[in-house]
Amino acid sequence: MVHIELCPRYEKAIEILGKRWTGLILRILQDGPKRFSDFTENIPGLSAKVLTVRMKELEQQGIVCRSVYAETPVRIEYSLTDKGMALQPVLDAIQSWATQWV
Amino acid sequence: MVHIELCPRYEKAIEILGKRWTGLILRILQDGPKRFSDFTENIPGLSAKVLTVRMKELEQQGIVCRSVYAETPVRIEYSLTDKGMALQPVLDAIQSWATQWV
Repeated sequence: MVHIELCPRYEKAIEILGKRWTGLILRILQDGPKRFSDFTENIPGLSAKVLTVRMKELEQQGIVCRSVYAETPVRIEYSLTDKGMALQPVLDAIQSWATQWV
Repeated sequence: MVHIELCPRYEKAIEILGKRWTGLILRILQDGPKRFSDFTENIPGLSAKVLTVRMKELEQQGIVCRSVYAETPVRIEYSLTDKGMALQPVLDAIQSWATQWV
């Protein structure tokens, strides 16, 4: 057996980023703050139920910030935190690879 | 509604790379050619059944190459293709982000 030491932080990052739809949600957030419906309307196949779960996960990981504006009707927006914005090189690297190889 | 144009190649890349365990499988393959058991023994929670599915997907996508050596017993090794090796900047970017933020 070959023993390979996987970095626990890398494993955790893969666990966070590798969830279904997360790569697309982050891509949309790179464009600026967005409302809930902006995700479901731009990602075919993503249900409101699954999006709710994903957003809560991303909030818990400190990647996404949820802002509630006391307007009528109440406006809720999602945006990237500093930790979330630091993912830019990851998304850019995926885009570069996709452009060349996919 | 805000309309966001997601790049279809990016979407496809996320679909391929975002599958559960794939980020860890690729990380292990960066270390060089590996046998089937090297993955199951180094990734707790990854079953042989799921690994078989993942490896077939990665082969079909041209990311992983499966080599069969006519020895006794037969030796089967998995390695990265050029397309797979081109993922190095993606994995490096995830590692950098993980080191700083996770």
